[in-house]
This record gives sequence, structure tokens and C-alpha cells, in this order.
Amino acid sequence: MKMYDIILKKREGGSLSTEEIEYFVKGVTDGSIPEYQTSALLMAILWRGMSSEETYVLTKAMKYSGDVVDLSGIKGIKVDKHSTGGVGDKTTLIVAPLAAACGVKVAKMSGRGLGFTGGTVDKMESIPGFRTALEPEEFFKQVSEVGMSVIGQTAHVAPADKKLYALRDVTATVDNLSLITSSIMSKKLACGSDAIVLDVKCGDGAFMKNEEMAAKLSNMMCEIGRADGKKTVAVITDMNQPLGNAVGNSLEVIEAIEVLKGRGPKDIEELSLKLAGIMIYIGGQASSAEEGEKKAAEALTSGRALEVFGRFVSAQGGNPEIVNDYKLFPQHSIEKKICAKADGYVAEIKAMCIGLASQHSGAGRATKEDEIDLSAGIYLEKKVGAAVKTGELLATVYGNDESKVSAAAAEIEKAFVITNNKPETPVLIKRIIGLQ
Amino acid sequence: MKMYDIILKKREGGSLSTEEIEYFVKGVTDGSIPEYQTSALLMAILWRGMSSEETYVLTKAMKYSGDVVDLSGIKGIKVDKHSTGGVGDKTTLIVAPLAAACGVKVAKMSGRGLGFTGGTVDKMESIPGFRTALEPEEFFKQVSEVGMSVIGQTAHVAPADKKLYALRDVTATVDNLSLITSSIMSKKLACGSDAIVLDVKCGDGAFMKNEEMAAKLSNMMCEIGRADGKKTVAVITDMNQPLGNAVGNSLEVIEAIEVLKGRGPKDIEELSLKLAGIMIYIGGQASSAEEGEKKAAEALTSGRALEVFGRFVSAQGGNPEIVNDYKLFPQHSIEKKICAKADGYVAEIKAMCIGLASQHSGAGRATKEDEIDLSAGIYLEKKVGAAVKTGELLATVYGNDESKVSAAAAEIEKAFVITNNKPETPVLIKRIIGLQ
Repeated sequence: MKMYDIILKKREGGSLSTEEIEYFVKGVTDGSIPEYQTSALLMAILWRGMSSEETYVLTKAMKYSGDVVDLSGIKGIKVDKHSTGGVGDKTTLIVAPLAAACGVKVAKMSGRGLGFTGGTVDKMESIPGFRTALEPEEFFKQVSEVGMSVIGQTAHVAPADKKLYALRDVTATVDNLSLITSSIMSKKLACGSDAIVLDVKCGDGAFMKNEEMAAKLSNMMCEIGRADGKKTVAVITDMNQPLGNAVGNSLEVIEAIEVLKGRGPKDIEELSLKLAGIMIYIGGQASSAEEGEKKAAEALTSGRALEVFGRFVSAQGGNPEIVNDYKLFPQHSIEKKICAKADGYVAEIKAMCIGLASQHSGAGRATKEDEIDLSAGIYLEKKVGAAVKTGELLATVYGNDESKVSAAAAEIEKAFVITNNKPETPVLIKRIIGLQ
Repeated sequence: MKMYDIILKKREGGSLSTEEIEYFVKGVTDGSIPEYQTSALLMAILWRGMSSEETYVLTKAMKYSGDVVDLSGIKGIKVDKHSTGGVGDKTTLIVAPLAAACGVKVAKMSGRGLGFTGGTVDKMESIPGFRTALEPEEFFKQVSEVGMSVIGQTAHVAPADKKLYALRDVTATVDNLSLITSSIMSKKLACGSDAIVLDVKCGDGAFMKNEEMAAKLSNMMCEIGRADGKKTVAVITDMNQPLGNAVGNSLEVIEAIEVLKGRGPKDIEELSLKLAGIMIYIGGQASSAEEGEKKAAEALTSGRALEVFGRFVSAQGGNPEIVNDYKLFPQHSIEKKICAKADGYVAEIKAMCIGLASQHSGAGRATKEDEIDLSAGIYLEKKVGAAVKTGELLATVYGNDESKVSAAAAEIEKAFVITNNKPETPVLIKRIIGLQ
């Protein structure tokens, strides 16, 4: 088999066979296929597309390019949750304790990566003492006993995706549903859970700019998940404004704790209960998603989910006192306020601008070498629909570097759009796909 | 400027600006753009195409990526001739002496490359003593005095093309009219002649499989040539069967000499006179292509062209006695005959099979490292339209390696198609484009 012939076949619009796709993924993983041939094939895939069958074969080959985690040592149904990525998305930290409090096992392996803030693993590291690298035995034991654990994903999970993504990122070959699906699902399937809930963000601050594309991606991911024998449900949610009020690392952990205390922002509470409800249902702990959601709400109001969160922090070496004393988190030394320049209503808070502001403030990495400032970030005082008066506080930037904080503030100025008329309230949960 | 943005723009179907194309070609030449980005752009160009304007800018940028030869030291109009490549194509060795004998200056720089046989430079090296590396002064002096010279093309002519072609060749991104045009024309324009005649082969044994594609390529190349201020004419010719009877290196030089002696195969004589006639016309030595063709015919029958050929060989250190004594060429030690297995007519001689047979015999390079056997090759005893009887000789393979000669013979068996009915005589010269 020759890589040249595979490129030519796809270029001419042909369907790649299982053998061809496996040959390609193997060659990418072991480095025997040169990157210039890989990128030519990736562009040909953007041009000609891939069928569902090809996408499934690609995903499976990528799943098996590295370690496939065996979670069978953990009793019960393991349910994973994944977000395609947005601004202010700290739902994992709320959803996992909610589901775990209702009997679902959440064995989560999470990435760091580049972005507006750190990944879930970076966020958790803002808790003093918290360890994100656990030995497998320790991880399994904790999930069995506490109901949940969040650890860093090793390099050995889907290494083909790591290599392919790095190349797609610099050759303008990211935007293809089959490639996005295989990238997300290969990792999810390799992580070994029995069922998966996907939070597919759509809007200005997300990769999928509109609901139609988000629905296509959701359908494809659910199809691939089911083909691999996992219950898979996708929830399409709005990402035109940030989720919740906090964007950053420690800021988001604090907001997650606030939600678990029943006094967090309503948008993120609503979404967390919805996602947890589905996890509880497909995790076999409720007879429907609605019943699951009721159970999640009960775990929230009773304080059981907050209790699980505390045990989870302790188990991984973190100081559980942070739940009661936010001063134990890394502290910022500088803050800058952004105020309204006109009377009216907040019509838009461009998520993309807030995301960039967060990155500028020091909360996210622009390159792999960047150090994250765990205390930095943005707090939104107003969300879309709020009435504001000239001079009223819209948002605050936190950080430790004057120039970074100023750069972030400038970006936030661009994010807020104030109008005379009250805008329609945006719908947060747009569609659920794959719920049976 | 970022290569990523250039790839994205072309991927989305945009037109690249002059600055973007120049940035790309510069980055390819100096190695600052990684090959994986170049191949992604090449595939995007295959997908979205390039306008005439983009193609011209690309060609010019590639022309100026290395040395541009200044032939102004040679008096008279310098006319270049280029063939897109076929099987048995030794026309340069006939056409150049014909045109030179009529006052045209032919300063030819030729490649080696991979293929069914060696390039013109390899063929000439089958003449004992012949040197294909001349100093510029020596080259100019010879063209001025003898009327022609053929030397090897240096690495400094259009280095961008060298790099791009090597990458296209392994990423299935060769087949695009704009990329083919820029590859051929950048080199032709950098070689400094005043006018160019292009022999565009079409058919089974050529890159362009049909006349329509050949015409599109011809039009584009003529347009680019004229835009650069060079008279450019393209002749579309048949390559469904090999040209002439000899395929190889010394075998083709001998056949060229036979044509110059007036006793060569008629197909190659016809084409050579046509091409030389156009060169003589656009070289200002005749008032029309028809008059040019008459002058070429006179140079042939009078023996003046053969005389020029002899002086050209001598001037470059070759033994001019080879014109009279073919035993002075490298000799083969093995020959194998292929005979007809049925009575009938030769309906087809698949040029591609004969080309592969030639390569198998040792006459061509499959990889850059391969040594050419200058004595090896094929001689066709019958051409399309000939009546044959069972057992009658169709072709002979020559070489020095039993297994290579056998492999070649097996390929030749596939090339000949014998039918009961006499086939139509194929039209050799299909169309002339750009003659004004």
C-alpha cells in the first residue's frame, strides 16, 4: 500500500477502505508517513469529505493508535462528559459531582491544551495541593469510592489525534466534520467509559458558529459513539455569550462551588442540571432524563453534590477548606473595572472577545510554553438582557501584570454591545440529540 | 503575512494576490515554509484552481526564484523548443539542427529527470566524449558559431519549480493546468530565449490523455509566454503510439541521425519539419510557418542540417564519426525478439507499455539514483496500421541484463493489439495553437 495512492483516491472523490485508513493512521502514529503527505490527504478530505463509514473507521483506528483505558475494575456504569469548548465553561466541575452523588461513576481524563483559559486539569490545579497525575490503581479506587475523579490525559491516549491535530492546526484543515468527530470521539472512546454526554457549543465563541453545523456534528458523533457500543447523547448549547459570570481558572472553580452551594448563576445551573440529568439517565440511575434531572436537583439542594466535590478534592490531595475559604486560592494583585458608557440594555457579550480577554489577562495559553496565571480572568457583572446605566460596572479583569490586564480590558470593551431596546433572552439549551 | 492565511484563502476559493504568491514562492525556495504547509496549499489549488492572472504571477515568481539566463550576447533570435514528454521523442536532436541550418539560434538547456528514457542530455551522452556541462561563455560562443548547443540545466534555473515538483510528485498534486503551466513556463522563461515552440503530447503515453486537456494547457502556456513578451506557439501531437521506431538513448540518437540523412521514419520526419518550420518562422527566418517548413525540408534534403549536427557534436567534444559509424555508440550484449501471435493489423501500440518496457530494459531511471544503460531500449519493427503475419517480428529489446530485457519484453507483449480489420491511420499533428 502506498500513501500516494490513498491521497490520489481521496482527491478523486473515492471512499477509502478500512485497510487504507488503518495504514494512514498507523503511519501518522509511527512517523513513517511524512507530514507533507498527511497534510495533502487532510486537504483532500476537506475537499471531498468522508462518509459515516469512513469516519467510523478513522475514529476507531485513532482510538487504537495508543492505550485504550480499561475501566472494568470500577463497578457500575461509567459516564463521560465532554464539551467542545467555550468561554466560561466550568460545567464538568458541577456536573460530575451531581452525577456522582446520584450513583453514576465519572472517571474523567482531561486535557490542558491551548485556549481562552486552561483546561479542566489546569483549573483544578488552582486548588492548593491538588494532584492531577494519579496512578491507574489510585484513579480506579477513587472513582469507586468517591464516585468521581479528574486526572490529566496521558500522551498515550490517541497519539494519532495529537499528531493529526497539530498538523491540521497549521494547514487550515481543522474545519471538517469527519475530522472533528474522529478527533473528539477517538479520545472519548479510548478513555473507556460506557456512555458519553457531549456538550456541543454553538455560536460566536465556539468552533461551530451555527446550530445547523452543531447538529450535523452532534449527529455524527452520536452515530460513531453508538457504532462503538456506547450510549452517546449530544446537547447543543448557546455560546454567543460566556457561560456563567466567571472566566479564568480559580475564578471558575469558585463559581462552580457557588453553583453547588445553590447560589451560582442561573444559566450554568440550568445547563448543569440538564447535563447531569442525562448522565444519570444513561448511567442507569433514573428511568428518564427528566427523572435524572430531578435527582440532580435534589443532590444540589440537599448539599450532597457539594459534599462529593469536597471528598473529590481531598482524595486528590487538595485542601478541602477552599470550599469555605476562597482566599486559599491563588490571589490576584491587580484589578481593572470596565463600566457602561451609555444607558440601555446589554444586547451582546461577544464570547470570542471575552475569551481573548481571558487569554490576554494570563488565564490561558497562546503557545504551549506559556505559564498560566491561575488567579487571572474576567468576572462579568452583567449578562445579556440586563439593564445598565452609564458608569455602571459591566465586568472586572483580575491578574498580576499591569500590561496584560490592560490588554484584557481593551478586549472587553469590544465585547459589550449596549442598545436602547431590551433584547430577547437567548435560549441556552437549543437541542438534544441521541436521547432514546 | 502568514502561510496559514494563504492556505485558508485558497481553500475557501479566493484569489491569491501577487504579494501572497511571491511570499509563497520565496518561502518554498529558501525553505522557510514547511513542506506540510506547501502540500496543503497545492491540494487546495487542485481543488479551487487558479485564474490566468494567478498562474502568470506564480510562473513569474518561479522564474525569478533563481538565475535568469541572459542570452543577449548571442546575435539573432533565440528560439527554444520544449516537449511535454512522450515515448520515443527525439525531435530536439532533429529540429534544432534543422532550425539552426536556417539561421535560427537554438540555445537549449535540457534536464535529465526520471522517465521512460533519459532526457536529451542523457541521450547526447551516449556519444563518446560528448560534454553536456559547458561554461556560459563557451555555450554562447558555440550557439553563435554553430547555431545550436544542448547543455544540462543547472540547479539555479527555477529552483522553486524543482522543490515544488518534487513535492507534487509525492502528494498527488501534479494534475493541475496552472501548476503544470507554471512548472514548464518558469523554466522556459528563465532560460532566456526570445520565442518558444511547445510540443504538447496527448494520448495514452503522455501526461495529457485527451486533446481537450492538451488544448487547455497549450492555450494557458501560450498566454503566459506572450504575457512575458515571448512569441509562444504550441503544437498538439499524438502520443497514443511511440514517435518513430526507436525508444532508448543511443537508439534514439541513431534514429535522429537517420532522419537527418533523409531515411528515418516518416512520422518523426513530418513532425520535425513542422516544428522546425514554426521555429524558423518565429525566429524571423521565414515569412510564414509554411515557408519555414519548406526551408527546413531543403536543409534536410541538402544535408545541411546533418552537417550542423556534426559540428554541434564536435564542438561539445563528441566524436563526429558516430554519424557514419553507429558501432562507436555503447553496445548491447543481449537482444530479445517479440513476434506476432496472430495474422492481422497492428491496431494499437500502447505508448505507456512501450515506455515502461524501455524503463525496464535499463534505458530510463525509476529513481534518481538509477544508472542508465545508454545502449538499452526498444526498436519497433511495425507501427500502427501495419499488416502482420503470425511469427513476424514486431519489436526487439536491447540491453545488457537478462532479467531486465525479459521484463521489458513482457511489457511489450501487452503493448501490441492485433485486429482483423485495418485500423484508421492515426493523425499525428492534431492542432497548432498561438500561431499568428
